[in-house]
Amino acid sequence: MTGTGEPSSPATPRRRAAPRPLPVAVDTMGGDHAPEEIIAGAVAAVRDHDVRLVLVGQAPRIRRELDRHGVVGTIPIVHADEALDMGEGALASWRKPRSSIAIACHLIRQGRASALVSAGSTAGVVATSRLRLKGQQGVMRPAIAVTLPTRPRPTILLDAGATTDVKPEGLVQFAALGTAYAQILLGLERPSVGLLTIGAEPAKGNKTTKRAHELLAGGSHGIEFAGNVEGHDLLTGRVDVVVTDGFTGNVALKTMEGTIRTAFTEIRDAMTATPAARMGALLQRRRLQDLRDRLDPDTYGGGVLLGLNGTVVIAHGASRARAITSACELAHRLAAGRIVERIREQVAQTRTSRFGRWTHGDRDGSDRQAERGRQNEKAPDRQSGSGGAQLPAEARAARKGPAGDTVPDRVQGED
Amino acid sequence: MTGTGEPSSPATPRRRAAPRPLPVAVDTMGGDHAPEEIIAGAVAAVRDHDVRLVLVGQAPRIRRELDRHGVVGTIPIVHADEALDMGEGALASWRKPRSSIAIACHLIRQGRASALVSAGSTAGVVATSRLRLKGQQGVMRPAIAVTLPTRPRPTILLDAGATTDVKPEGLVQFAALGTAYAQILLGLERPSVGLLTIGAEPAKGNKTTKRAHELLAGGSHGIEFAGNVEGHDLLTGRVDVVVTDGFTGNVALKTMEGTIRTAFTEIRDAMTATPAARMGALLQRRRLQDLRDRLDPDTYGGGVLLGLNGTVVIAHGASRARAITSACELAHRLAAGRIVERIREQVAQTRTSRFGRWTHGDRDGSDRQAERGRQNEKAPDRQSGSGGAQLPAEARAARKGPAGDTVPDRVQGED
Repeated sequence: MTGTGEPSSPATPRRRAAPRPLPVAVDTMGGDHAPEEIIAGAVAAVRDHDVRLVLVGQAPRIRRELDRHGVVGTIPIVHADEALDMGEGALASWRKPRSSIAIACHLIRQGRASALVSAGSTAGVVATSRLRLKGQQGVMRPAIAVTLPTRPRPTILLDAGATTDVKPEGLVQFAALGTAYAQILLGLERPSVGLLTIGAEPAKGNKTTKRAHELLAGGSHGIEFAGNVEGHDLLTGRVDVVVTDGFTGNVALKTMEGTIRTAFTEIRDAMTATPAARMGALLQRRRLQDLRDRLDPDTYGGGVLLGLNGTVVIAHGASRARAITSACELAHRLAAGRIVERIREQVAQTRTSRFGRWTHGDRDGSDRQAERGRQNEKAPDRQSGSGGAQLPAEARAARKGPAGDTVPDRVQGED
Repeated sequence: MTGTGEPSSPATPRRRAAPRPLPVAVDTMGGDHAPEEIIAGAVAAVRDHDVRLVLVGQAPRIRRELDRHGVVGTIPIVHADEALDMGEGALASWRKPRSSIAIACHLIRQGRASALVSAGSTAGVVATSRLRLKGQQGVMRPAIAVTLPTRPRPTILLDAGATTDVKPEGLVQFAALGTAYAQILLGLERPSVGLLTIGAEPAKGNKTTKRAHELLAGGSHGIEFAGNVEGHDLLTGRVDVVVTDGFTGNVALKTMEGTIRTAFTEIRDAMTATPAARMGALLQRRRLQDLRDRLDPDTYGGGVLLGLNGTVVIAHGASRARAITSACELAHRLAAGRIVERIREQVAQTRTSRFGRWTHGDRDGSDRQAERGRQNEKAPDRQSGSGGAQLPAEARAARKGPAGDTVPDRVQGED
């Protein structure tokens, strides 16, 4: 998945001349094996993969661990008093403003980190990041992208559970998020995007997917829309990106996992039947175990939260050092690929087309005029976004600079 | 699944004294192997399982087939001019009012048949039956119930794709439909019902499932609500009935099927690796093939359409004689178990509780008082149901008797 560490075709950065991205903030306190395995993984990422990191958590404890690895002083540490327990969900993000995840988000907002890696509980990480990082301008809802173990190359599925109730336009945005993510992760120029529903024909699905199909099929979103896909297409690699709401995506992922587990049990039962079966089955067992590992119960938690002002890589709760190293590499790679900016660009195209379809019956009319009209009608519940896509990057950055520096203690108009 | 042919505890019939149910109408023209395999299966059902049937389709053709089996004259035939092609969907039900499925529905409405068996395309069968049989009184939407291959006993999942957009109250009704079905199919007094969503806690899910959870957990529906279940619970047999909307259910079933197919491919690849693996793997292969067969691509089509004025058993499109025999037995068994009446009773209880919960914000007030209040404010769009749950069964039956006897020609205020 990672390994090379750099995207295949890095676009020229606009706002910052530095060729290297900011460090990745690692939450050392989240996960079943925190902090030992988290810190061991982080050390390996720095040592073997040249990833810049900053470790967030209880400073004395982190120092002790770094000392064990003989690398005290080489990785910056930011102290955090509290940690979210693995059992804690969304509410904890309010109760614990000084949690390691909250502090890591703070670093991103201050411009001191580019991304966040945590193996904490998915619900806690998602809630805290949504609260602290806020949704990216123009993005209605965030989505968790997970990587399905398809061949020859993986398929990205989103949303795996961040947003359960999604409007058709939200699904179109997820398609944009997934496109940007696949461009960086898979190095594809125009990744193909399928809409998860219950039949190949456009008219198959529920109200939301039918409308989303219309929007995706009709617009020029910069999205390579490949039509509807069904549940049995998820593991065939038919498309690069599968788009669905967080409810359906989560059910599908867990169904996949449960089915693998059942198949595994059936095989194991069969293997104990005869000595020949026991002997010969080792190979299959390994293959199935491999498949099962790839479809781990926590798969949906092993994803990337997209659509916020900063990238959040959610590692499995059970992550060991190696998984944390991979997560750090992935976060680094996404930051280097300017994922947040790519998403902004991708979503801006979507938005244009979307409002074109919505507000203007006249799809074939003057593009320029429609374009202007669209921009004026944007996003009533966010800051006035006239020309968000057209404004120079500097102007945009300046406009949201002050907000970026402040870490609010309360949610401000989260929608 | 069947075999005994009779429900474990048949309730005393109220409206008809006849101990034997009406014959089952078999659509001989639907399915990949129609009419030969359909008729062969039907003949076996009559001969070996004492199921009364009526065969619907092109009479000369049916007679020829019956002649081949040497049973001409023993099974009644009703002629139908047309058939729905396997590729035809919902629209065909309008275009072909004389199709074999439409004629079979007609027999049910005339009181000449109790149920319908078809191996035609799911979309065509569902659309035609909805159009011709109409929704059962009080049932908002029909649902397809399928049987998942869990152990020790099967789990029933509904809806597998009949109704894609379902309100919370619709899910509660599906729970009632599934309860009635499980009582007959599995012979359970109080089958446990789980709500398919994305977390065990009541607050996990989308808006619809969260509300449905409240309704199911709060009411006295005659439903044994076991709480939320997740995708990975589908094949563990944790509950007897899993309730979901037709969109999610269909995605979950197809995901299951696709995952089995992938696991199967992985195993087959591994099996070709070494001679030892090839030899020893035969057993596993059979087990996996078995699991794969049970989770056939057409599983969602191999179900029972519940909630109409008559029971519709949808056999797989690829059904051979044996599958048709089973489908006939199942239809017979459901008719003997008075499934339509059981659903009516079950849904009536649901309705009472549902409206009670709706109109009162006061969930912590005096139970007795609230209960009374709830009953008084029930069902603005349905018959006044004061005390539906408390009234003796006879009184309820008496009150809804006349309506139950009338089969409307048009949909009346289907919501």
